[in-house]
Amino acid sequence: MKTAVIGLGSMGFGMASSLVRDGHDVWGQDINAQRVADLHVAGGKGAATPAILASVDVVVIVVLNDKQTRDVLFGDAGIVPHLQKGTVVVSCATVAPDFAREMEGLCQAAGLYYIDAPISGGSLRAASGELTIMAAGDPAAFDAAEPVLASMSQNVFRLGDCAGAGSAMKAVNQMLVGIHIAALAEAMTFGMTQGVAPEQFMQVITKSAGNSWIVENRGPHIVDGDYTPRSIVNIWPKDLGIVLDIAKGAQFSAPLTATAMQQFVAAAGQGMGLDDDAAVAKVYAHNAGLTLPEGKA
Amino acid sequence: MKTAVIGLGSMGFGMASSLVRDGHDVWGQDINAQRVADLHVAGGKGAATPAILASVDVVVIVVLNDKQTRDVLFGDAGIVPHLQKGTVVVSCATVAPDFAREMEGLCQAAGLYYIDAPISGGSLRAASGELTIMAAGDPAAFDAAEPVLASMSQNVFRLGDCAGAGSAMKAVNQMLVGIHIAALAEAMTFGMTQGVAPEQFMQVITKSAGNSWIVENRGPHIVDGDYTPRSIVNIWPKDLGIVLDIAKGAQFSAPLTATAMQQFVAAAGQGMGLDDDAAVAKVYAHNAGLTLPEGKA
Repeated sequence: MKTAVIGLGSMGFGMASSLVRDGHDVWGQDINAQRVADLHVAGGKGAATPAILASVDVVVIVVLNDKQTRDVLFGDAGIVPHLQKGTVVVSCATVAPDFAREMEGLCQAAGLYYIDAPISGGSLRAASGELTIMAAGDPAAFDAAEPVLASMSQNVFRLGDCAGAGSAMKAVNQMLVGIHIAALAEAMTFGMTQGVAPEQFMQVITKSAGNSWIVENRGPHIVDGDYTPRSIVNIWPKDLGIVLDIAKGAQFSAPLTATAMQQFVAAAGQGMGLDDDAAVAKVYAHNAGLTLPEGKA
Repeated sequence: MKTAVIGLGSMGFGMASSLVRDGHDVWGQDINAQRVADLHVAGGKGAATPAILASVDVVVIVVLNDKQTRDVLFGDAGIVPHLQKGTVVVSCATVAPDFAREMEGLCQAAGLYYIDAPISGGSLRAASGELTIMAAGDPAAFDAAEPVLASMSQNVFRLGDCAGAGSAMKAVNQMLVGIHIAALAEAMTFGMTQGVAPEQFMQVITKSAGNSWIVENRGPHIVDGDYTPRSIVNIWPKDLGIVLDIAKGAQFSAPLTATAMQQFVAAAGQGMGLDDDAAVAKVYAHNAGLTLPEGKA
């Protein structure tokens, strides 16, 4: 299908590459022109200009947050005026369910389909086309965009026929992931105070009731001292902030989420905002006078 | 091997049964005589009297905490005076590493071997002989007790040549498990406020980055409204209390552990101390005015 991917960061570039690999015609757009050039080298068709946007079937928006999503769609250089009626907008940023519903309404008013489609799985799965997509929207939009969704994902969960349900499920997932990353950091560094080396922690915990997807995914970053950003610390004050705002609105008390949030805020405050989110372990290590494993040269 | 199992609760009875199934001669001891009779019916040899204790190769102690462990070994009716020199004591309660080292010293002074051997996996795995054992102790003790350990477990991690390292790893595991149970409860009930039904939560999260062993193990209890105790709420104020005491002693700040602890304390305070630990979800539900799924009749 003819597809534009707006936002070619660590997630978007991988998703665009997965689309190219499956034979779709893929144009890109990013504030960094080098990313668009890189996509071209990787088999993309080039920049998603206004003329191109008028011809695509699907636009996948992979930006950081609600503000960027609104700018991409309806800002001064927004894409909506260029899209043909019936084009499917697939919006992947983590946003509040209310925001997703607002965007759906505005897109429908412009004759467009909107799929509320937050993603989970990280940059490696984005690149391999194995994301989980937590999606909600008009069934006709799913029918139209199905080949594009399939090329990017291992699982597409259809959670409802209008926007909001996808973002709600994403918020639930982010709540768990954020807590689990901080819990991994807390437990691995606590173990170090008791003579349990990080490698030994991984060996035992991955075979025990304390295991999680996050232990297996982020644990090796700490063991290797490798904080090359795959998912950055700064994601968490943002995403857990969204979660806590939604929770407050629902008068839902979320003490673990609030506590995990503070550890990521401290990590950002210590200058690690752009490091891999496993760097939250350094907050714990600093507080306890521990030395974490250092990266191999 | 000739084995005595002291403490025939939900874990100990399953472990004794696994030993019987593998052909060991198993005697039992419990404050509840019915449990000893039940073990006899299940193929056990009967009560571990002083005369029997003088003949066994291995004693497995599966009690609740450090106080009960000390009483079993060295209390007024303690077993140590009855054991032959060279008998291996396998101590499975979750205790502080310092306590394990103290018991090892006292047992060695009495001519006994001591294995610091906390267990993980829950009562179903105890019954199927598939526990994880986090063990530390004299290599000669491991050699002597190996067939008994093998019959009870899928994984025996040998974490060191003297007591303490097993209990340290168990504390690390309990920290993660306790946080993960409360996190599951927090996320599943948060989802309910956003229209995500518990069944849908399980369907999506088990395929997403938020997954954990605990989500898969405890989640169905909440979905089914089934709080039949497998591991009870009261375990957590005890075990997380041990963890927080060790952490404080190491000047280790453990904010998620402390927060999870409070949710379990609240669950116990609401009268759910003897319910399955997934009942901590009711604390969240109560705080948010939610109604959890009810049990099938």
